[in-house]
Amino acid sequence: MLSKNTVKFIKSLHQKKYRFESGKFFVEGEKSVQEVLSSNFETELLLATELFLEKNQKLLESFRGELISVSPKQLESLGQYQSNDSCLAVVKMKANQPFSPEKDELIIALDDVRDPGNLGTILRIADWYGIKNLVFSPQTAELYNPKVIQSSMGSFTRVNFFYGDLEQIFQKWNLPVYGAFLDGENVHQIKRVQPGVILMGNESKGISEKLEKWISKKVTIPAFGNAESLNVAIATAIICDNFKRILGS
Amino acid sequence: MLSKNTVKFIKSLHQKKYRFESGKFFVEGEKSVQEVLSSNFETELLLATELFLEKNQKLLESFRGELISVSPKQLESLGQYQSNDSCLAVVKMKANQPFSPEKDELIIALDDVRDPGNLGTILRIADWYGIKNLVFSPQTAELYNPKVIQSSMGSFTRVNFFYGDLEQIFQKWNLPVYGAFLDGENVHQIKRVQPGVILMGNESKGISEKLEKWISKKVTIPAFGNAESLNVAIATAIICDNFKRILGS
Repeated sequence: MLSKNTVKFIKSLHQKKYRFESGKFFVEGEKSVQEVLSSNFETELLLATELFLEKNQKLLESFRGELISVSPKQLESLGQYQSNDSCLAVVKMKANQPFSPEKDELIIALDDVRDPGNLGTILRIADWYGIKNLVFSPQTAELYNPKVIQSSMGSFTRVNFFYGDLEQIFQKWNLPVYGAFLDGENVHQIKRVQPGVILMGNESKGISEKLEKWISKKVTIPAFGNAESLNVAIATAIICDNFKRILGS
Repeated sequence: MLSKNTVKFIKSLHQKKYRFESGKFFVEGEKSVQEVLSSNFETELLLATELFLEKNQKLLESFRGELISVSPKQLESLGQYQSNDSCLAVVKMKANQPFSPEKDELIIALDDVRDPGNLGTILRIADWYGIKNLVFSPQTAELYNPKVIQSSMGSFTRVNFFYGDLEQIFQKWNLPVYGAFLDGENVHQIKRVQPGVILMGNESKGISEKLEKWISKKVTIPAFGNAESLNVAIATAIICDNFKRILGS
């Protein structure tokens, strides 16, 4: 049965403060929960409707957390979805663990991308293009924000990420850094690239000045019309697409 | 002075029903309002703060509508922005006027793209890539929805669009139609394209079956990872980018 304390606890996870105090976040909706249950994230608590339980028996065989049966109405009062007839999972955050990149991989770095929807969409793009590793400046949106989780469509379970000082990280890695600017080399005309870091800047300010000295090459998405800019998630997608095309694998 | 009736009228424009009854919609924020004032849309009413009036004297010289001076607090109670220290404009909708495409242009067609944020983002992408003409199935999101206007970042003023039956339109135009599918030709490998219509489908169902017979070529964005799909605005951007690269101008 769903206790008042559990209700209160899940509702508290809408706020960053309580997510970080508890080290937990929530995931809702059938597809995202299926993905988190199949991932190496640890799901502590699963609230599920009869419908979800019936459809996902196989997946739930190996589930070792607490399971509570709930109605769609109860789910809808807990999460951010207006309608949810399936499930909501409470999941443990991962430690903020730096990774060491390979020499031949593409990595995405985000410099203060603040909008949770943009971050979630960028995770999905990374996952589409087989980019496994992402690094975020400390002021980038919080990955465990429910809007990030929702817009990533489960992709947050398949990428590695950590938050850190990008200057120190670029210095340590010593890899080419490609920065998206309005005055760089046209990505349609680049013939060769070395794998490295694709750096994307803040929604309104772009890439911060202190990071400019780490840029090996400025790249630009060619404009053919009059829009002044593209949304950062759109720009990330186009640059990843061009880099993957040029790298050819 | 801002009357109660004007307040009531502007608030009514949050609802589609009243937008269509009055044939008007609203635009808020400095950049979008500047663009609408510079466009061939007719602005009937402008609510502006002292700050906006001071900064935009030149632009306002040719403005022939009604002008009301307001406080930021008044603006914030009228629009959808949490903070708005500049302006809100009430603008007349354009008639739903079909256009006749040129033989050598790219056109975007949307088949039931329902999310207003996606539609607005697609308008901005079209504007970036110099695509002037868009056509929407009747169930596509309404262009005058405040979220569409906001996410288009002013680009809605620089494109032509109309709503209509896509089957009839494709029949009449007799142009190549490129449909985005998961099993089409890899856009990285296409060497030549003829200009024509890029058709994008609904967020969850894709392109509807009845339109499939109008597709000249299925195109696919190559996947390198595990995400099952891309957001429709992201996919639109990537296909436009590749087509513009292949067309070379």
